[in-house]
Amino acid sequence: MSTDTSQDPLVVFTPSGKRGRFAKGTPILTAARQLGVDLDSVCGGRGICSKCQVTPSYGQFSKHGVTVQEDALSAWNSVEERYKSKRGMIDGRRLGCQATVQGDVVVDVPPESQVHKQVVRKRAEARDIVMNPSTKLFYVEVQQPDMHDPSGDLERLRDALRDQWQLDNVHADLHILQTMQPVLRKGDWKVTVAVHLGDRENAPRIMHIWPGYYEGSVYGLAVDLGSTTIAAHLCDLHSGVVVASSGIMNPQIRFGEDLMSRVSYSMMNAGGAQEMTVAVREGMNALFTQISTEAAIDKALIVDAVFVCNPVMHHLFLGIDPFELGQAPFALATSNSLRLRADDLDLNIHPSARVYLLPCIAGHVGADAAAVALSEAPDKSEDLVLVVDVGTNAEILLGNREKVLACSSPTGPAFEGAQISSGQRAAPGAIERVEIDPITKEPRFRVIGSDVWSDEDGFDEAIAGSGVTGICGSGIIELVAEMRMAGIVDAPGLIGTPEQTGTERCFLDGRTYSYLVYDATARGGPRITVTNRDIREIQMAKAALYSGARLLMDKFGVDKVDRIVLAGAFGAHISPKHAMVLGMIPDAPLDKVTSAGNAAGTGARIALLNRDARMEIEETVRAIHKVETAIEPRFQEHFVNASAIPNSVEPFPILNSIVTLPTATFNTGGGDKSDGGRRRRRRE
Amino acid sequence: MSTDTSQDPLVVFTPSGKRGRFAKGTPILTAARQLGVDLDSVCGGRGICSKCQVTPSYGQFSKHGVTVQEDALSAWNSVEERYKSKRGMIDGRRLGCQATVQGDVVVDVPPESQVHKQVVRKRAEARDIVMNPSTKLFYVEVQQPDMHDPSGDLERLRDALRDQWQLDNVHADLHILQTMQPVLRKGDWKVTVAVHLGDRENAPRIMHIWPGYYEGSVYGLAVDLGSTTIAAHLCDLHSGVVVASSGIMNPQIRFGEDLMSRVSYSMMNAGGAQEMTVAVREGMNALFTQISTEAAIDKALIVDAVFVCNPVMHHLFLGIDPFELGQAPFALATSNSLRLRADDLDLNIHPSARVYLLPCIAGHVGADAAAVALSEAPDKSEDLVLVVDVGTNAEILLGNREKVLACSSPTGPAFEGAQISSGQRAAPGAIERVEIDPITKEPRFRVIGSDVWSDEDGFDEAIAGSGVTGICGSGIIELVAEMRMAGIVDAPGLIGTPEQTGTERCFLDGRTYSYLVYDATARGGPRITVTNRDIREIQMAKAALYSGARLLMDKFGVDKVDRIVLAGAFGAHISPKHAMVLGMIPDAPLDKVTSAGNAAGTGARIALLNRDARMEIEETVRAIHKVETAIEPRFQEHFVNASAIPNSVEPFPILNSIVTLPTATFNTGGGDKSDGGRRRRRRE
Repeated sequence: MSTDTSQDPLVVFTPSGKRGRFAKGTPILTAARQLGVDLDSVCGGRGICSKCQVTPSYGQFSKHGVTVQEDALSAWNSVEERYKSKRGMIDGRRLGCQATVQGDVVVDVPPESQVHKQVVRKRAEARDIVMNPSTKLFYVEVQQPDMHDPSGDLERLRDALRDQWQLDNVHADLHILQTMQPVLRKGDWKVTVAVHLGDRENAPRIMHIWPGYYEGSVYGLAVDLGSTTIAAHLCDLHSGVVVASSGIMNPQIRFGEDLMSRVSYSMMNAGGAQEMTVAVREGMNALFTQISTEAAIDKALIVDAVFVCNPVMHHLFLGIDPFELGQAPFALATSNSLRLRADDLDLNIHPSARVYLLPCIAGHVGADAAAVALSEAPDKSEDLVLVVDVGTNAEILLGNREKVLACSSPTGPAFEGAQISSGQRAAPGAIERVEIDPITKEPRFRVIGSDVWSDEDGFDEAIAGSGVTGICGSGIIELVAEMRMAGIVDAPGLIGTPEQTGTERCFLDGRTYSYLVYDATARGGPRITVTNRDIREIQMAKAALYSGARLLMDKFGVDKVDRIVLAGAFGAHISPKHAMVLGMIPDAPLDKVTSAGNAAGTGARIALLNRDARMEIEETVRAIHKVETAIEPRFQEHFVNASAIPNSVEPFPILNSIVTLPTATFNTGGGDKSDGGRRRRRRE
Repeated sequence: MSTDTSQDPLVVFTPSGKRGRFAKGTPILTAARQLGVDLDSVCGGRGICSKCQVTPSYGQFSKHGVTVQEDALSAWNSVEERYKSKRGMIDGRRLGCQATVQGDVVVDVPPESQVHKQVVRKRAEARDIVMNPSTKLFYVEVQQPDMHDPSGDLERLRDALRDQWQLDNVHADLHILQTMQPVLRKGDWKVTVAVHLGDRENAPRIMHIWPGYYEGSVYGLAVDLGSTTIAAHLCDLHSGVVVASSGIMNPQIRFGEDLMSRVSYSMMNAGGAQEMTVAVREGMNALFTQISTEAAIDKALIVDAVFVCNPVMHHLFLGIDPFELGQAPFALATSNSLRLRADDLDLNIHPSARVYLLPCIAGHVGADAAAVALSEAPDKSEDLVLVVDVGTNAEILLGNREKVLACSSPTGPAFEGAQISSGQRAAPGAIERVEIDPITKEPRFRVIGSDVWSDEDGFDEAIAGSGVTGICGSGIIELVAEMRMAGIVDAPGLIGTPEQTGTERCFLDGRTYSYLVYDATARGGPRITVTNRDIREIQMAKAALYSGARLLMDKFGVDKVDRIVLAGAFGAHISPKHAMVLGMIPDAPLDKVTSAGNAAGTGARIALLNRDARMEIEETVRAIHKVETAIEPRFQEHFVNASAIPNSVEPFPILNSIVTLPTATFNTGGGDKSDGGRRRRRRE
C-alpha cells in the first residue's frame, strides 16, 4: 500500500453498482475482474473474441456522484479499430480489454457480455436461468516445445490453462491426445479449447480443441425421455439459446404402450430389456441426428447432455433390467444422479460428451419429477404449492420452503384419451373443448385444428380436412365435467336415462346409458359417445390423482393448498374449472391454478445450463420426503371418496362458490355400481 | 477416560512390536485395528474369509515383559470350529476376528495375513514390493430396500461400504448398475465387491460384484510393450503372486524392424499410424487371451493394467500419430502418466478395467525408462549409480539421492545382432560366449542351447540339433572385445592383416580384412566371420551408449561412477569385462557392474501392486533432469573419442589393472578410416 490511490480515477460498473479506483491505463476488463464484475472473455483480453464489450456512459451521474468526461476512456486503438472494421460493433460499445481508464467513468455491462447471463423464461412466475454451463471455451497461447526442457504438448497446454485462466488439474480425453499435436501447430501454438470444468466425480477435462480463436460455440442437449415421446432441446452452452427443439415417438412403444406392459415384456422375453435398451438408444440417436441437422451443427460439438425420465425409462436407457420396479418394494438400481460418458450409452454425439442424469426421487418418482422440482422449485416457494405432472402416471410434489413431499399415483392412460371408447391422442379432429347447455343438454365443442365451435357458422368448412374423429384427454375431462354440471351424470358417476336427464342424447347402451356427443356417420366418420365405462375410467384416473395429492396434504398436515401448478404437456390444456368440477385437483382459487408446460424438459434445460443447479437438485431430492402410496392405508380411503364427482366427503367450498352442481342421483337400485375400489397400478 | 484400563490384559503384536491394553473379550482383529497393526480382513470380522489368521504364542517373553497363559485367548467358538473343519487351518493359528483377549498375550501376524504383505524380489540388492494395490475386495452386508424410506440398491451398497469399511464417495461403473440387482438378491444382501480405490483423477469405483463371500481374487497385468516383443505378467492383486507370464512378438514388426522405420511408415502411408495402433492392440489382446488361458482365469477378473513402453510405442498404442517424435524438437503429445479405461484402448479384459501408463521422461526417454527408475531407484541410492537399459535405443539414468539425470542414446540394433554380417537374434545356434587365445589367435565359443565349448569333446554332438548359425548380441560384444585383447583388431577399430595379427584367420575381404570365427560350410551351414564393417557397427553402437553415459557424468560433475546396473533382457547376458574392454560402459570395478534383468517389466509390476509407487514415480520423473543428447555439443566429442576401443582419451584405470591391451595400430595409410562421426538416430 505504498501508492496513494485516492486520486486514481473512479470506475463504476452498472448494473452491478460495483466500483473502485484504478490507475490510469488500467483496462476495463482488468478493473472488472478485480472488482468481481461479471464480464465475459474467451480470448483472455487479446482483443479477439469481443465477448467483453461494454458501453461507457458520459455526463453527470448524481446517483453515482460521478461526472464522466469525453476522454474518460482511452482513444480507440488499432486492435479495437481492426475488430470494428472487420466484425462490426454496436455504436457506443468498446472492447473492455482494449479501452483503458483515463478518468472517472461509468461502464455498463450489457447482458450479452456477462458470463452468467440470464436466460429469460417466458412464464411470469418462473425464475430465469443463470448461465453457468459445465463446459466453456478458453483461448490460450501455448509455449512451444523446448529440447532443453522437454515436456509434452499437453503439459504445456495445461500450463497455459493454469497461467492464463487459473484452471488447475485439467486433464484431456484420449481423443484430444490423438488430435492435439497438429492443431497446436496449425494454430501456431494458439488454440481454443472447450473444457468440461469437472464435477464431484471427475477432474476438469479438455473436450475439444481448435486452432487459433474459435468463433463458434459448443452445445448441449436437454432431453426429456418419456415413455411415449422423446423430446430434446439443443442449447448453445455460451448464450443459453435453444437453437433447435425436436421430438420423436419412443421406439419402445412397439414393446408396450404403457410402462408396466414394457416391464412385463422384459419379464416374459429373454433379452427383452436389452431389446428395449437398444431401441431407445437408437431412437435417441435418430433424434440427435434430426435435431443437429435442423440446427445445422456438427454433432461432435454436442459436449454435454442432460436426461430426465421416469424410473423405468431411466433403467431401460441405462441398460438395467427394470424387473425390480415391477414389484414391491420397487427398488431402483440407483437413485442418485449419474455422470457418464456418451459412449457408455452408445450416443453418437461428441465421443466423450458428458452425460448427466438427474436423481430419481423414489421407485415411482423419477428424474422427471426431480426436473419438475428443479423447474418449479416448491422448496423455494413462500406459499404452499401443489405441483402435479399429469401423465399416464402422475408425479405429485407438495411443499414450501419448510419441506417438500413427493409421491406418484397410477392415473392410467385415460387422461391421454386411451381406454376411452371414443378417445384418441391429441391430434387434428379430436374434440378438445366442450360446453353443454344446462337447459337443453345440447353440447357444443371445438376440435383441434379449428377455432370454430360446432354450433357456429363455418364449422363444417373448418373441419372439412380433419373431420371429427374422437375425444382427446383434455376434451374428455371437460366433457365429463360438463355432463356433471348439466345433470347428465350424477355424483357417483352414473349416466341418467333420457327421462332422468331430459335428453334423448342419453341412450341405453348395453346395461348402462351413454351420451351422444356427435354423430359423424353421415360423413363416414364415427359416432362419438361417452359411455358409462368411460366415466368409470375417468373416475379412477382422477381419483388416483386426487388421492395422491390429498395424501401429501395429510402428511403435510393441511386441508388446502395455496396454489396448484399443472405440469406436463397435457397439463397445459386442462381447464382448471373442469378439473376441479371433476375433483381431479383439490379445491383452490381458479386463478391460483396455473400451467407450467413441460416442466420436466425445462428442469433438464436448467441442469444443462447451470452446473450448480445439478448440485442443488441433488440436495433437494435428498431432502424430499418420499411417500409411497401403495403402502398408505389412507390412500385407499381417499381413493374411494374421490371416485365421486367431485368427491363424496371433501366440501370444495371455493368450487361451490362458482358453480352449483345438481344433487340428483340416478341409481335406482339396479345397474352398474361405482367400482371406485378397483385399481391398477400403471406408470408414465 | 472414566474406566481404569491399567488392569486390562496386554496384547503385544509381532513382528510390529505394537502393544496396548484391551478389555477382556476384545477380538484380536479389533485390537489390531485400534493399534494400527497391519492385519488383513475381507469379510469385516465375520469369520468367513480367514484372512485375519494369527498365531498366539504362549509362555514367558522376557523381551516383551509378558507371560502368556494357556487361556490368554478365548476358547474356540463355533465359527472358528466350522471354518477349520470346512477349510482347514495351520496348527496353532486362530481367526483374529473370533479369538478374544482374556489375558496378556503375544500375537504374531504371519506375512500372508498382512494387507501390505511384501513381495520378495529375487535380487539381493533390490527392494521388496509392498502390496498396496489399486483394487481390493470387500465383503459387505447391505440393507434391504424399504418402501417407507426409498433409496436405490447402489445407495444402500454405498452406505454399507461407508459404514463397514470407511470407504466414502464410492461410485459404480455402469456395468455394475446393470448387473448388481440380481447379485444382491442372490447373495441375500451379502455381497463381495472389488473396489478401485480411486486416484487423483477418479473417485473410488466398484468394479465387480459377487453374491455372498467371494473366495477368489482379482488380477492385474504388468505389461512391457517393447518394439520387438510385448511381455506381460499376470499378478494376483491380493497376494502379489505372478500367476502367469507370457510374451509375444510385437505385430508392428511387419511395418518396420526398428522404431524410426515405423515412424517413417506412418509418414509415408495415410492411415499408417492407425494400422499400427490396431496391430499393437490386437497383439495385446492375443497376449491377454494367451496369459489368462495359461493361468485359467476369466479375463473379466483382470481389473487393472499397467503399461510401460518407449515414447513411439506409447503414442502408437494410444492411437497418437508419432510424427512429432520423428523430428526435433521431439515433442511428446503428453509426458505425464495416464489413467484410462480398458475400453478406451479396445482391450478385452474387464470392460472398465483401469489402465495406468507410467509417465515418459522425455521425447526419447519413455515410460519404460521411468519403470526402470522405479525398479532400480537411483533416486534412493546412497552411491552414484549408472543405470543403462540396453536395447536398440539405450536409456541411461545417472544419479543418487541428490539428483537423477536421464538421457537416451541411439545405439542402433547392432547389440541385438542386427546389421552384423553374421549377426542373428538370440536363439539356439547363436554364438553367445567367445574366447580368443592371445598366442594362437584361435577362437573357442559356446552357442545358445549348449553348455559345451567348441574345443571340448562332444561339441559336435551338442550342437547337432541347432548347428552354429550366427552371432547374437552378447556374442558379438565378447568377440570384438576378445579380438581387441588378442591384437586382431586395433584401438581405432581396424582388423589387421595375417602378417600384422599372425593368423591366417584374418583374410582380405574386399578392401578390408575379416576374421574367420567358424566355417560351417562343410555341414551346409554358414561361414561365420567378423568383417571390418561389423566392427564399425559395434563401434558406433558402443560409442553412442558410452557418450550418453559420459555426458550425464559431465552434467553431474563426476569422472567416475560407483556402480553400474545393466537393465534389459540383453543386459543380463553382457559380460562386464568385455563391455568395459569395448569401452561400452565407463570404467568401474567389475563386481560393481550388475544386471537387473527386465527392470522395466519389474517397474511395471511395482506400479501395478503398489498404487503409492505410481505417485512416487510421477514425482521422481518430474524431478529428473532431462538431457537431450542431440543438442549437446559435447556428445559429439565424446562420441568421436568413444569410437576407439576402448576410448581414445579416457584412461580406464580399473580396466587397465585387469587386462593389458595391445597398443599396435594396423593403419598403414590406406584402407578404411574410422568413421566415428557418422551417426544415425534410432530408437528402441
